[in-house]
Amino acid sequence: MASLILLTLKKTMQSFNPPIRTLMGPGPSDVHPRILSAMARPTIGHLDPAFVGMMDETKEGLKYIFQTENELTMPVSAPGSAGMETCFANLVEPGDKVVVCINGVFGMRMKENITRMGGEAIVVEDAWGDAVSTDKVEQALIENPDAKILAFVHAETSTGAQSDAKALCKIAHAFDCITIVDAVTSLAGSELRVDEWEIDAIYSGTQKCLSAMPGISPVSFNERALTKVKNRKTPVTSWFLDLNLVMGYWGKGAKRTYHHTAPVNTLYGLHESLVMISEEGLENSWARHQKNHEELKSGLEAMGINFLVNEADRLPQLNTVFIPEGVDDAAVRATLLNDYNLEIGAGLGAYAGKVWRIGLMGHSSRKENITLCLSALKNILG
Amino acid sequence: MASLILLTLKKTMQSFNPPIRTLMGPGPSDVHPRILSAMARPTIGHLDPAFVGMMDETKEGLKYIFQTENELTMPVSAPGSAGMETCFANLVEPGDKVVVCINGVFGMRMKENITRMGGEAIVVEDAWGDAVSTDKVEQALIENPDAKILAFVHAETSTGAQSDAKALCKIAHAFDCITIVDAVTSLAGSELRVDEWEIDAIYSGTQKCLSAMPGISPVSFNERALTKVKNRKTPVTSWFLDLNLVMGYWGKGAKRTYHHTAPVNTLYGLHESLVMISEEGLENSWARHQKNHEELKSGLEAMGINFLVNEADRLPQLNTVFIPEGVDDAAVRATLLNDYNLEIGAGLGAYAGKVWRIGLMGHSSRKENITLCLSALKNILG
Repeated sequence: MASLILLTLKKTMQSFNPPIRTLMGPGPSDVHPRILSAMARPTIGHLDPAFVGMMDETKEGLKYIFQTENELTMPVSAPGSAGMETCFANLVEPGDKVVVCINGVFGMRMKENITRMGGEAIVVEDAWGDAVSTDKVEQALIENPDAKILAFVHAETSTGAQSDAKALCKIAHAFDCITIVDAVTSLAGSELRVDEWEIDAIYSGTQKCLSAMPGISPVSFNERALTKVKNRKTPVTSWFLDLNLVMGYWGKGAKRTYHHTAPVNTLYGLHESLVMISEEGLENSWARHQKNHEELKSGLEAMGINFLVNEADRLPQLNTVFIPEGVDDAAVRATLLNDYNLEIGAGLGAYAGKVWRIGLMGHSSRKENITLCLSALKNILG
Repeated sequence: MASLILLTLKKTMQSFNPPIRTLMGPGPSDVHPRILSAMARPTIGHLDPAFVGMMDETKEGLKYIFQTENELTMPVSAPGSAGMETCFANLVEPGDKVVVCINGVFGMRMKENITRMGGEAIVVEDAWGDAVSTDKVEQALIENPDAKILAFVHAETSTGAQSDAKALCKIAHAFDCITIVDAVTSLAGSELRVDEWEIDAIYSGTQKCLSAMPGISPVSFNERALTKVKNRKTPVTSWFLDLNLVMGYWGKGAKRTYHHTAPVNTLYGLHESLVMISEEGLENSWARHQKNHEELKSGLEAMGINFLVNEADRLPQLNTVFIPEGVDDAAVRATLLNDYNLEIGAGLGAYAGKVWRIGLMGHSSRKENITLCLSALKNILG
């Protein structure tokens, strides 16, 4: 080896010490110190009996917050986008007709997933900021009796709009369609009842109302969805996301089959966040998000700042508001970040530069954060 | 909400406090306390300028340990299996003929990836425990002049065999094939020179010789590989792993385009592990793994325990040895785990029950671990 030249670093690396921020954007939200501390516990093997016990508890905790008894309820070892892809990669077969509702960025991403899996996307469009129209969905299903799946976003992170998941699932089932639901931003922050609403496949993220670190994606599939997976005519293109294999790893009772190496420490964090939600109580968590939303809303409205989404369809954990006329979006967000260490979110797509997205998610949904945010905005906007 | 029934947890959840193990299996290896502590630093937004700066440093650190100047060198936000899939999903198009070398579990997984992407796999087989035969590969490429890719495992985690990546890449290029190389277990533990050996696409993991937590997968693509990605006739099936999109997120200089939410805290851990390797020096890390392997080997051979892999092809960081005749595999591993908190790895496939895999990777590659392992084995085997 000695005779060969070693490429060297151009600049000496130093440990990274992040600034201490208050995270009130669309996610990640502030991670509670209990969860950060859980992440730092010593790594153990992913086949260690102690780890396997923790996996079982994690599944139970996820079933609780999803409000489901689905046996296949588990965290995918990758971010929310991979949770989305797990649903589409397993459920959409080439040629499948899928009705997909687009009222923001994540509906568009769903469509992209459908097309890449070889499915045919029938798009139901609503304005950004509106909830998905149940009437339009019904019409699309009438016009496409051969559709097999209805896909929609429960909580649109790009706009803060909430759709009626229960009603949409009911319509889908009347037309013999299974449902794929994006609950990345709603899980644990607002009412969500997978079994009662008869959601067939659902995915979420950990970095929003669970206040855990980004990087894994809880999913849940019921028997109706699993039957479609098991009866596929073509194999799932993704080996990594193939539920037929992943189930062997996360399945209960039987000896676990090695599939991939689980993100051990990240799962410690998720487990701790589930412990914390179980201590608070799921309904109390929903109620806290609602109460804090109302307080923020009063303060913003008193400043003459208006919401994008109608009150009835508004997500309490993600407040999308119009930037007051004449105000420089980027300058305000930079001042919040640099002078107050406060992060709020920018608008996306057509709303870039026009709205702010103020998150009150998980541990970030606290009275002191509301006060900080309102006061800082008042100071800056004068 | 009040009128509805809430599904409750069957058992109260408690914080999970893992046992303190010494990890000498095939990975994860012991995570250094500096890295655990880095993971627990406060989460910041994944578009925060401070975070973006850390991403750039992480890329530089990865280029150093891969020994490459490839601009596309970055961590995929998911485990090593997803790093593998990133290579195959982007580089294999339906109908592509791919020569794949199988001498253990991970070569088999490569083949599975090829088939699922619609490629045609031409298999070159070698016995488990042997290195990939350069002669057989050359023969396969002569017989398949239309092959486009050669895929092989540099360091087979299932057996501890190391193949001659430099020679295999040279042969591949003589036949105008690009190469996909699995370096999950070799990266930072034994010599690996991406640019000098002309490896076109490579993936690795963080939970082996980097001693970081499992969950992300460093990859590197050179221009030759990227040209194939950019000239694809069909879109990459996976939205999550599509490099055309991921590059916009991890690209340098230009404004980053949101793709997915990066696993912020896990990346803190990877960054710290890169700082530590830069402090030690990459060649010193290779040399440490070699030296410790020799010490373990002497001890094991003194006990009459033999290696599966020929000395010339042996990975210093993964020691696969035959279980002495008459010894109960599972009982010994359970005693090591329960009485000594020491994890070693079981055999896979045909070698299940026949071999142990003793890892000396990253922070686990230490004199005290060798002493513990040898002494505990002596006590148990009598």
